Amino acid sequence: MNTIFFKLYKYQLVIIWHSLCSCPFANQDCPEANNKKGSHMNTKRIRLGLIGAGRMGSFHGLTAARHIPGACLAAIADPTPGQAARLAAELGVDKVYTDPQQLLDDPDIDGILIAAPARSHAELVISAARAGKGIFCEKPMAITLDEADRAIAAAADARVILQVGFNRRFAKSFRSAHLDVAAGRIGTPQLLRSLTRDPALNNPGASPQWVIFLETLIHDFDTLRYLNPGAEAVQVQVMADALIAPEYKSRGLLDTAVVTIRFDNGAIATAEASFQAVYGYDVRGEVFGSAGMLTMGGVQASDLVRYQAQGIQADTQRLDTDLLRDAYIAELNHFVDCLRSGAKPLASGEDARAALAIARACIESYEQGTAVSL
Amino acid sequence: MNTIFFKLYKYQLVIIWHSLCSCPFANQDCPEANNKKGSHMNTKRIRLGLIGAGRMGSFHGLTAARHIPGACLAAIADPTPGQAARLAAELGVDKVYTDPQQLLDDPDIDGILIAAPARSHAELVISAARAGKGIFCEKPMAITLDEADRAIAAAADARVILQVGFNRRFAKSFRSAHLDVAAGRIGTPQLLRSLTRDPALNNPGASPQWVIFLETLIHDFDTLRYLNPGAEAVQVQVMADALIAPEYKSRGLLDTAVVTIRFDNGAIATAEASFQAVYGYDVRGEVFGSAGMLTMGGVQASDLVRYQAQGIQADTQRLDTDLLRDAYIAELNHFVDCLRSGAKPLASGEDARAALAIARACIESYEQGTAVSL
Amino acid sequence: MNTIFFKLYKYQLVIIWHSLCSCPFANQDCPEANNKKGSHMNTKRIRLGLIGAGRMGSFHGLTAARHIPGACLAAIADPTPGQAARLAAELGVDKVYTDPQQLLDDPDIDGILIAAPARSHAELVISAARAGKGIFCEKPMAITLDEADRAIAAAADARVILQVGFNRRFAKSFRSAHLDVAAGRIGTPQLLRSLTRDPALNNPGASPQWVIFLETLIHDFDTLRYLNPGAEAVQVQVMADALIAPEYKSRGLLDTAVVTIRFDNGAIATAEASFQAVYGYDVRGEVFGSAGMLTMGGVQASDLVRYQAQGIQADTQRLDTDLLRDAYIAELNHFVDCLRSGAKPLASGEDARAALAIARACIESYEQGTAVSL
Amino acid sequence: MNTIFFKLYKYQLVIIWHSLCSCPFANQDCPEANNKKGSHMNTKRIRLGLIGAGRMGSFHGLTAARHIPGACLAAIADPTPGQAARLAAELGVDKVYTDPQQLLDDPDIDGILIAAPARSHAELVISAARAGKGIFCEKPMAITLDEADRAIAAAADARVILQVGFNRRFAKSFRSAHLDVAAGRIGTPQLLRSLTRDPALNNPGASPQWVIFLETLIHDFDTLRYLNPGAEAVQVQVMADALIAPEYKSRGLLDTAVVTIRFDNGAIATAEASFQAVYGYDVRGEVFGSAGMLTMGGVQASDLVRYQAQGIQADTQRLDTDLLRDAYIAELNHFVDCLRSGAKPLASGEDARAALAIARACIESYEQGTAVSL
Repeated sequence: MNTIFFKLYKYQLVIIWHSLCSCPFANQDCPEANNKKGSHMNTKRIRLGLIGAGRMGSFHGLTAARHIPGACLAAIADPTPGQAARLAAELGVDKVYTDPQQLLDDPDIDGILIAAPARSHAELVISAARAGKGIFCEKPMAITLDEADRAIAAAADARVILQVGFNRRFAKSFRSAHLDVAAGRIGTPQLLRSLTRDPALNNPGASPQWVIFLETLIHDFDTLRYLNPGAEAVQVQVMADALIAPEYKSRGLLDTAVVTIRFDNGAIATAEASFQAVYGYDVRGEVFGSAGMLTMGGVQASDLVRYQAQGIQADTQRLDTDLLRDAYIAELNHFVDCLRSGAKPLASGEDARAALAIARACIESYEQGTAVSL
Repeated sequence: MNTIFFKLYKYQLVIIWHSLCSCPFANQDCPEANNKKGSHMNTKRIRLGLIGAGRMGSFHGLTAARHIPGACLAAIADPTPGQAARLAAELGVDKVYTDPQQLLDDPDIDGILIAAPARSHAELVISAARAGKGIFCEKPMAITLDEADRAIAAAADARVILQVGFNRRFAKSFRSAHLDVAAGRIGTPQLLRSLTRDPALNNPGASPQWVIFLETLIHDFDTLRYLNPGAEAVQVQVMADALIAPEYKSRGLLDTAVVTIRFDNGAIATAEASFQAVYGYDVRGEVFGSAGMLTMGGVQASDLVRYQAQGIQADTQRLDTDLLRDAYIAELNHFVDCLRSGAKPLASGEDARAALAIARACIESYEQGTAVSL
Repeated sequence: MNTIFFKLYKYQLVIIWHSLCSCPFANQDCPEANNKKGSHMNTKRIRLGLIGAGRMGSFHGLTAARHIPGACLAAIADPTPGQAARLAAELGVDKVYTDPQQLLDDPDIDGILIAAPARSHAELVISAARAGKGIFCEKPMAITLDEADRAIAAAADARVILQVGFNRRFAKSFRSAHLDVAAGRIGTPQLLRSLTRDPALNNPGASPQWVIFLETLIHDFDTLRYLNPGAEAVQVQVMADALIAPEYKSRGLLDTAVVTIRFDNGAIATAEASFQAVYGYDVRGEVFGSAGMLTMGGVQASDLVRYQAQGIQADTQRLDTDLLRDAYIAELNHFVDCLRSGAKPLASGEDARAALAIARACIESYEQGTAVSL
Repeated sequence: MNTIFFKLYKYQLVIIWHSLCSCPFANQDCPEANNKKGSHMNTKRIRLGLIGAGRMGSFHGLTAARHIPGACLAAIADPTPGQAARLAAELGVDKVYTDPQQLLDDPDIDGILIAAPARSHAELVISAARAGKGIFCEKPMAITLDEADRAIAAAADARVILQVGFNRRFAKSFRSAHLDVAAGRIGTPQLLRSLTRDPALNNPGASPQWVIFLETLIHDFDTLRYLNPGAEAVQVQVMADALIAPEYKSRGLLDTAVVTIRFDNGAIATAEASFQAVYGYDVRGEVFGSAGMLTMGGVQASDLVRYQAQGIQADTQRLDTDLLRDAYIAELNHFVDCLRSGAKPLASGEDARAALAIARACIESYEQGTAVSL
């Protein structure tokens, strides 16, 4: 586990734990592509290129470098001076670019991991598609529906894989819940809930407007669609505010939101977000149907429970990359599998567009103070 | 996840889940050692050799091939015809041996993973030490105290790392509990419990005598020492029987056992094992002290909970390699770290001997029907 | 436990369990009031009269007859022929009336328990106040704000105790949560949730219009006020439907609803109801604030957990009178304490009015399809 | 809840909670028996007499006075000056005796509740039987097997009901577990565990020798028989010590013990006790069989869970009379039912003798340092 993450949250236990696995050496060798001359996509090592070496980019880079069998991290691009090089050194990656287009132009790269700022995602998807690369794009894939349509079309035209980083689709309990609902085990969904609570609102001044809908709740909108398979949102109502940092409300930063969504199968869903949960990273889901209920998610850090004079105590998860670590690894494995097989990813560009449509309707509902139909 | 494991346990959900991560390609490239000419131990890739390509060997091989940064799996040895080759093909390993000594003689190998049958462990440790290799040995390191002493001495003489596969020391909740106890957070330990329940007694006819003490409860004996740091066992009492397969009792196969252990700090511990828990793989610990209690372990497979007409339902873990997957990965990471740094492993040869001493006393207690002092 | 309840839900375990406590004899003696001549309110036995001998009336009657120290059940009134007499026989109560006014006119009665149909509550409160009796009224106290105002005024004019049956205020975990929030232990409330799910929609044809807001969610509206002490609702938004019995929607029966409420301290709350949860009776609460979160409620029937080949299983609560039994007993104890001390009840007429105001705004929001300000 | 209990344990939350139900008035009227002239046992109010007005006597007295339909508390006897009178005043009981024999001679009393010191139990049972009274006796019914035999014989000769206070048989989860095992739902029991941990070792100087076996673990011995229905203990092994108050070991006070028990159906059980658990009152059970496992018990005080910066927190139970309150009430209800019906109680004199036989064998095992057969 590299040191970048420890700068973010310095909880003793996490550090103690990860120190068991301290890794001065990082990347598995990623041999030159021409060493694999004559190999076709089905047998050669998949070579991934990462765009964006910030927090999530670093985590995806680490995953790509170490935990994806049959793949390796071959190049990193980031326009911030030194950012790509620093991560490349930690992960043992040879190629470093400051211009993402250089990475897209690199003929040795098979697939692109986009972890750049959200506002650049759609254009990067389009450029990567034009370069003929398979694409894994962090959420949101786009911030306008027009952008989303163009990104989807570009990938379709280029016949490249386009997967979006909806990590909860790859979390074990959420995936099992989806399969249960799809198999009819809880009957017809009637009430759903999905929530995301980040541990801390850092640097609110740097947060773009509508970020709570476009970048946070977008996860919940997708989760609700995932837990209500085949149904689509038809109406949204928003109640939102700046309760954590009210001084930023005038600049358009909402930090607390509750969204109610009606689906075309009648189900009514609630999506809820907060930017600051002092107890850690909280991601939960609930789906209630005519034949039962499923609940998933939880913040407990491990199965250690302490009983002391003050009562019962347990530690909580503090990082999304701890809480959803297996899901992050699984989604990149899935991406590499899709690159190889050509199968459509479980989290597609169309899924990204559908979640975005809900987010855009939320903005409209918030601005108008009414329910908005999709 | 390779297909070998699915032959063992075929639970639908596990398969569905892991199929998300199906991996036709396996090993990261493990380049020739001479490509690293001039590199010293602190900077070069650590090259591991695996002895034993059975169930645990396959799992350790998979881990070594994929999940250990700065290390790779370079060779596999197994005397069973075709066994090593089959695993090597799945994991992309080039070198295959049928004689473990050939692997020990291979100058390119830095560290050995011993996952052969228990009765061969001590001799393999001794041979590996003589060959100057770092050693990770699955538990039990030895089945007699004399063997254990010779193995420890051989490693000491050769100044090689010797780590034993006590996986619970690397499980997050057990490790946190150990740190809590060591820091005095629950005062002086007074009562402890550790239990291991395997999901099914397969092929009892092939199980060696005393296996419940030497191969199963050895984990619990080590766990109890780990949760009572600094204390040593001074007395054991055994109550054991063949309740699952009584027809094998006359051949010496005990399948159910409760061991009571007195430690030199006064604490009284219970170790409990069963070879057949229909609900899955059950590993739990409890330590009660003058200032509180810690509990750890649990069989729930994920945080998905189902509420249906019949009540509440949740899935359970069925495989040790699922239940303790992160611990297995962490212990090999720790081994590679120790190889590089020369540090003494957290689960040492001396720890293996101490747990074995309890196991041997259990055999004596069972045979004599009395408490036995160590 | 009398037989009336067993007709409603016949779950074997519940019956087995309660059969341990089968009680052919019921009421503690309730001696004639004139035996207590000269005694004042502070020392005499409090004599309660019950109006309404249906399901909840029977349960409150049982509680009053048995579990309230210093009180007894002295009379029962119910206009349904034979209903009061049947319950009186079971509980050993001597006085039976078919006209509630007769009970109100009985000079031996100190306090009235109103468990008649909701639409009659307010008029009964007013009549009881005029008769000078202390009043415990099941929720809702009224179904229009005008009625509520008149009921509150009548009790104030008569200087009688008026308590409303908001049982969750007396449930241990909800009460502890309220005290935590009031003490500032989770900082300022920002997000709240309260839900009620009944186990089965029985006889939808007999359900009055808006019952989900006026009789079910009224509990949640009160709970949200209780968990956000000192704050008042300022805006509501409703999304509701008939998903369980869509054929009754045209008659005005909504069976599924999600209400979003904004409070004057900025907090945003969700109240959620369903009339049919196949897994049992589900009542839960959650309050999230700037310094932490509290969760309360749960459907597990006891601390028995089963681990079998199919996984983990636990039984659920099926009856509100099991789930909230201690709360029902505690609220009547509190009523009798208030009768004796003259203290204002913890669930007052004003609390009933405030919850009703939210319910009425919900009806308006549903009918208009917009957010409604209070 | 009367004030006696609050002197024992002063935990704020418990007090806050119970203050909701403060009860200056206590007993339901217990009319003179001759008012019931001509009534036979099946229709008259059962009149109970309490012997022993200490902590448990006060609790049983409170239960008898308030929570047992068809019964009342008619008299209290305690030789400590003023003790019976003080409790009688709180509970509204008229008759007070200092000599228990006076209470036994009172012709108005139908059933006796024995809550005197353990060493007097057997003689009181014998005297009560000779007086023709039904008998509920707190555990242990006797402290020698000879006493137990004489008590059982006396009750049999007098044809009176004899019930023993094994409260866990009446705790909901333990009772459900017993029924599950009896119905074969977990197959044949193979491993069992029962534990009792008191919150604090008070006044160790006043504790009689062997109290951990005769008065504390006697509950666990009975629980293990209850969870393994039809089986009997055949062998015990003890490991025990004075770890909490080592200075009292020389006077014979053991405060920590682990007992291993072999049953005649092969099952191996562990009973474990400690006199001081800083986190509260801990009573748990586990039964593992060929077809599954059941776990029961737990110390969480309510379903309130707190999530704060330090992690997850929940309160614990501190009093047996809170943890097992419903069980205490249920066992007295059962006693009154048996008095009326003549049925043999679910916790009989023979059950008391069987648990005592295990306790006596534990003393022998401890003194001899060997396993002891029963």
